[in-house]
Amino acid sequence: MARLALGIDLGGTNVRAALVDADSGRIVAARKSPLSDRAPQAVADAAAAAAREAAAQAGVDPAGLHGAGVGLAGQCLGSTGVVANAPNLGWRDVPFGALLTRALGAEARVVNDLSAAAWGELRFGAARGFSEVLVVFVGSGVGSGLVVRGRLVEGARGVAGEIGHLKVTPPRGGAARKCGCGQVGCLEAWAGGINLSARVREDLAAGADTAVRDLAGGDLARVSPGAVEQAFARGDAYARDLWEEIGQLLGTVVGNAVTLLNPARLILGGGVLMGCPGLLAATRRSIDATVSPSAAVGFTVAKAELGDDAGLVGAALLER
Amino acid sequence: MARLALGIDLGGTNVRAALVDADSGRIVAARKSPLSDRAPQAVADAAAAAAREAAAQAGVDPAGLHGAGVGLAGQCLGSTGVVANAPNLGWRDVPFGALLTRALGAEARVVNDLSAAAWGELRFGAARGFSEVLVVFVGSGVGSGLVVRGRLVEGARGVAGEIGHLKVTPPRGGAARKCGCGQVGCLEAWAGGINLSARVREDLAAGADTAVRDLAGGDLARVSPGAVEQAFARGDAYARDLWEEIGQLLGTVVGNAVTLLNPARLILGGGVLMGCPGLLAATRRSIDATVSPSAAVGFTVAKAELGDDAGLVGAALLER
Repeated sequence: MARLALGIDLGGTNVRAALVDADSGRIVAARKSPLSDRAPQAVADAAAAAAREAAAQAGVDPAGLHGAGVGLAGQCLGSTGVVANAPNLGWRDVPFGALLTRALGAEARVVNDLSAAAWGELRFGAARGFSEVLVVFVGSGVGSGLVVRGRLVEGARGVAGEIGHLKVTPPRGGAARKCGCGQVGCLEAWAGGINLSARVREDLAAGADTAVRDLAGGDLARVSPGAVEQAFARGDAYARDLWEEIGQLLGTVVGNAVTLLNPARLILGGGVLMGCPGLLAATRRSIDATVSPSAAVGFTVAKAELGDDAGLVGAALLER
Repeated sequence: MARLALGIDLGGTNVRAALVDADSGRIVAARKSPLSDRAPQAVADAAAAAAREAAAQAGVDPAGLHGAGVGLAGQCLGSTGVVANAPNLGWRDVPFGALLTRALGAEARVVNDLSAAAWGELRFGAARGFSEVLVVFVGSGVGSGLVVRGRLVEGARGVAGEIGHLKVTPPRGGAARKCGCGQVGCLEAWAGGINLSARVREDLAAGADTAVRDLAGGDLARVSPGAVEQAFARGDAYARDLWEEIGQLLGTVVGNAVTLLNPARLILGGGVLMGCPGLLAATRRSIDATVSPSAAVGFTVAKAELGDDAGLVGAALLER
């Protein structure tokens, strides 16, 4: 009899629920529902409904599951289940763990979505078998999960791993950019997909000479990291310089984290890095140039393997 | 009956051995000997002799001790006891743990001196009672110890915590400086006491207008961080700018490490930071400006309390 656990991935517009085989990491049933109401109680009810549907699909009793967890984009305060801040959902200081536990009728842990994904990659993805790991995701935002002695580092408050909010020196003597978190100078303000697209739009509006404009069909709203990557692949100078600049920023921060933590394995993932090989290559060059020689011995880099499922698998299998 | 453990602090010119009460952290007997020969076997013999003398002074049998450890400035490869690199001693890939264990007739652990000091501060100093801690020392070099869930982070190879070798952007658009480790652009190349003094000498030789020259008696060899601090205290503009610049570099790196690791407590220590209140103040301002708001909640900073004894206490009481 398979031991099944429940993983929930809570985005800004959808909730996904999956039953995960705790021994293989395989998803045996999954259900995705739109979020029509972002009020915490409504979201808890929608997540619990999706979970019950997935359980019914798998033919199991939701009460007999081997644990449950939810990952969401926000600051989650460790085992308290409190979400201090989740901009996508418009939440501040929401006791979502308690709401979800009540709606599910089973204890549910709440963690940052990238911590959940890091844990998924550790248990059944590209970091399997390693005990000292750094997992960095660059998607719409930038985040990480730190694994020390085989366990996720939570920090004193539960917010360890916010690598996107490390401060960086603006490239080429330029001005610092404002981040979605409200601070100025965060890595994510440059390298996160949302901010990156906004910056390219600014450059285009200021008259930058690049194929990105045509690749986006002349529509600024369609500018994306993917359009920059297409331009890069065609030898566009603007795209080449941009990837070099963003790769430098990312690689310096990530390489420094490797020197500090001395992991055996670095996993790189997220839609922007995985969708933009030119940016990934520039980032890896910068990481190699940054990591100290002593931390570089025996150190390897790999791409994330579980894609969008990493967070579901990780949330389901969190330590309790 | 007190449980006593043996701590050894191995410098470039001296070895200190101390018997430490494992329950109070108190040093009950200590012995310091000059190192006339830096060959590994000779150092192991000198350390063991100092340990036996300290044990005799305390009236205890060296064989009945509650553990033994040594801290030294260098890269120590975790539980293997191998010292990969110790520039002060001229060692590379020396199995010092095995040599010392044989010379002592008791199992001895070998760790980086700043990891030992961090552990001492955690057990009986300014970090006592905390389980998530970052300890940063700025002395002749720059190093740190990371404590997660009450345990020292060793990393995959045993070299975690080398915060002095994180790469920084040179201030004011200047050129990167070469570090003692052979790399270019390390924090220690700017903020470590040895490199800091060398840089001030260069500035003086280039005609910098500052009271530091007179405070060092006109003798470049006597230029030190302490002389810069004296000038700073007198309102010297060069010293003020230098402390602001170095404080910025230190504070950015340390503040970023706090964002990443989310410790409850940061301990600042080391001869340069403790001896230069002006630099310490600039560093603290920069840390406050760097730490993300979510990691700043409940976070406190304190000065190291055990001074030169931290490494002895920590080495004696390392986990086994």
